Amino acid sequence: MSFCADQLARVAAIWERMLNHRFLSETRDGTIAHQVFANWMRQDYLFVEAAIPFIAVLVPKAPRAHRVALGKAIPTLEKELELFRERAEAAGVTLENVKPSFTNHAYVQFLLASAYSRSYAEAFTVLYVAEKAYYDSWLVVRAGIDKGSIWFPFVENWTSDAFRGWVEFLQAELDGLADAVGAAERERMGELFELTAKYELAFWEMAAGGGGWPGLTGEMS
Amino acid sequence: MSFCADQLARVAAIWERMLNHRFLSETRDGTIAHQVFANWMRQDYLFVEAAIPFIAVLVPKAPRAHRVALGKAIPTLEKELELFRERAEAAGVTLENVKPSFTNHAYVQFLLASAYSRSYAEAFTVLYVAEKAYYDSWLVVRAGIDKGSIWFPFVENWTSDAFRGWVEFLQAELDGLADAVGAAERERMGELFELTAKYELAFWEMAAGGGGWPGLTGEMS
Amino acid sequence: MSFCADQLARVAAIWERMLNHRFLSETRDGTIAHQVFANWMRQDYLFVEAAIPFIAVLVPKAPRAHRVALGKAIPTLEKELELFRERAEAAGVTLENVKPSFTNHAYVQFLLASAYSRSYAEAFTVLYVAEKAYYDSWLVVRAGIDKGSIWFPFVENWTSDAFRGWVEFLQAELDGLADAVGAAERERMGELFELTAKYELAFWEMAAGGGGWPGLTGEMS
Amino acid sequence: MSFCADQLARVAAIWERMLNHRFLSETRDGTIAHQVFANWMRQDYLFVEAAIPFIAVLVPKAPRAHRVALGKAIPTLEKELELFRERAEAAGVTLENVKPSFTNHAYVQFLLASAYSRSYAEAFTVLYVAEKAYYDSWLVVRAGIDKGSIWFPFVENWTSDAFRGWVEFLQAELDGLADAVGAAERERMGELFELTAKYELAFWEMAAGGGGWPGLTGEMS
Repeated sequence: MSFCADQLARVAAIWERMLNHRFLSETRDGTIAHQVFANWMRQDYLFVEAAIPFIAVLVPKAPRAHRVALGKAIPTLEKELELFRERAEAAGVTLENVKPSFTNHAYVQFLLASAYSRSYAEAFTVLYVAEKAYYDSWLVVRAGIDKGSIWFPFVENWTSDAFRGWVEFLQAELDGLADAVGAAERERMGELFELTAKYELAFWEMAAGGGGWPGLTGEMS
Repeated sequence: MSFCADQLARVAAIWERMLNHRFLSETRDGTIAHQVFANWMRQDYLFVEAAIPFIAVLVPKAPRAHRVALGKAIPTLEKELELFRERAEAAGVTLENVKPSFTNHAYVQFLLASAYSRSYAEAFTVLYVAEKAYYDSWLVVRAGIDKGSIWFPFVENWTSDAFRGWVEFLQAELDGLADAVGAAERERMGELFELTAKYELAFWEMAAGGGGWPGLTGEMS
Repeated sequence: MSFCADQLARVAAIWERMLNHRFLSETRDGTIAHQVFANWMRQDYLFVEAAIPFIAVLVPKAPRAHRVALGKAIPTLEKELELFRERAEAAGVTLENVKPSFTNHAYVQFLLASAYSRSYAEAFTVLYVAEKAYYDSWLVVRAGIDKGSIWFPFVENWTSDAFRGWVEFLQAELDGLADAVGAAERERMGELFELTAKYELAFWEMAAGGGGWPGLTGEMS
Repeated sequence: MSFCADQLARVAAIWERMLNHRFLSETRDGTIAHQVFANWMRQDYLFVEAAIPFIAVLVPKAPRAHRVALGKAIPTLEKELELFRERAEAAGVTLENVKPSFTNHAYVQFLLASAYSRSYAEAFTVLYVAEKAYYDSWLVVRAGIDKGSIWFPFVENWTSDAFRGWVEFLQAELDGLADAVGAAERERMGELFELTAKYELAFWEMAAGGGGWPGLTGEMS
């Protein structure tokens, strides 16, 4: 069994909660409150911005063959930011002066700390799980959302052939990396696989209304 | 007004919630449940372990005069870990196979990411606030705790003259660093000051019973 | 006086030696030995490859406004690598299995270590000086080289309007960064300015025939 | 055959040149010029200073069992710096305002860049080779130097039982790390083994009188 298949089976309970999350089903069914989706959009805009440094820090550790792919991922993320800005304008949402929620801030720190302090194969695990989670999550939404929805361009973005190809590339490469490392490193890759899945689930929880700073009431956080 | 005094005034509402936290007052009053304190001990053991890499990553960025002080902080943290192991044995608590809670994991990632990606003065801000928060918090506990309490050695550790001296050193140095940098960097230092205060408050919230992974029930997280 | 103008005046003696280097004048005059230029090409190919990680490590430290520019620099460097491969084929030079010379290896380590351990303004200084040195050096060659030379495409690349625009952008931004930082950081920026100029001169020395590993005879290094 | 034994055999020609270096034999025989040794002392003082950040950057990547050993290496290096200052005073040598030579600067950048961008096992290889080279080199000197020489305390430091124990610890651990990693990483470890040996040889070359910045006459470098 490949590393990814093995790990996806191991974290299946977390993955299932993620795919069944009310944020996704309400977006799919068109019942999500405008402010709830707008809040997700604002937070995810910050997250995508922070994903650029994450990718960049991987570059010096990457094998030659990955360097070009990672280098191209940066302009792709810049385009994704444009999609957010374009949708924000269409939906009357402001992306200015947004502060990261607790969960968002934490997830971004996890990306950066992993990229800096972990081995390439370990940090690449985090990248794969984050992208795979987005692909699978937005497929759930795609299954029912009205194509005229103002949120549809997001669905299109993360369920496109191009994005599926990227996730498949990451999966095949991660399987290869896992085969090439020693047992201790592969175990750490498994821990990061699970941690990233937990952060992804936490992100949807935050999007659906949670995610304030613990111990602070709304107006302070 | 010095940078630290200015910032402590600015985050006073967060600081007050931290100092009034039930985890601290219950520890002070001797009413805290054994399992609650034991859980904090297990999580904080992981946190102190992770503080060593945080300090280490600061070393290459540190001005010469700070390098020796930071170098000495590492063995001090190793001694702190011994205190945890000694107290754990005295209290019948196991420190093995503990997994970081969500809040603990997030805070550790924040430390590491700050050390790697931020300027020295910015990352030093995080160090100061974390230490200052511990000093002030444990002073609250010291004001009433029975000196025969099995938890008293922790109180002693973080309210000792040596620890106070360390916090005062950090404060004086941080004021100096803030004077020396440009306005944009000083503003980022202020943002990190507030963020660190929020993480400290979140840590007590977690210690008092929260901190599970969002969206996962207890047995899964 | 702007920071760059000030520093260029300060390192003028190094800069002059660089611009008067026999590698440049012989390339300009068409008298350079094929093997000498081919050797430079092989070494510089490795250097450009290594410049990609250098740029990438700057990204997380960059202010928002620089992030897009740096992100675009990576594909530009990939294109530069294509130019090397295309010229290598045209000139019958192999780029495979080349090992970095001492000076080349050292310079690349300097780039990486600066990007990781120095402040953004300090590391950005290194980037500017390296690019400015290339622009000025190849202008010397451009002044006399036969446009039919097989090496002319390199000259074109680093004296193009696009490259000049990039260098001017870097210069204006570096001046701005130098204005914004404190005096101690500006002094460190000046030290790195001079160091980078010295590495650039050393690179031409290596290209012209030097650069073996000290203490090792040719066949061993 | 263990990794270290295997690699030491592979780089034997470089190692032999290092051990036969005139800097070592002249120091052993008491014929070295005061200014030559003093120059080495000034440069090596800078190198030891820079080794502290190198060790520090390894800490976050280190397995738990190594963390304490690395943490202790930092105060050991601080003590080594005291030895330099004490000897400098005894010998009437100033350690102030020394600028790194080209070779010294390059070697330090190599240490830092390796610590930041390479895997733990790769960067640990660099640490081992640097320490092993010093142990073996100073053993050469010990074989004949007058114990009343003002330079003898350096010889004592790097041929002591404590230092030998440290090198043996590093060797056993490096062998273990090499067993645990995959083939591609082990190959990169071998490349770094050879590179570090080359830098060590280059350092003695510089100490013996070379090491100026290429292309700059003495008074400018």
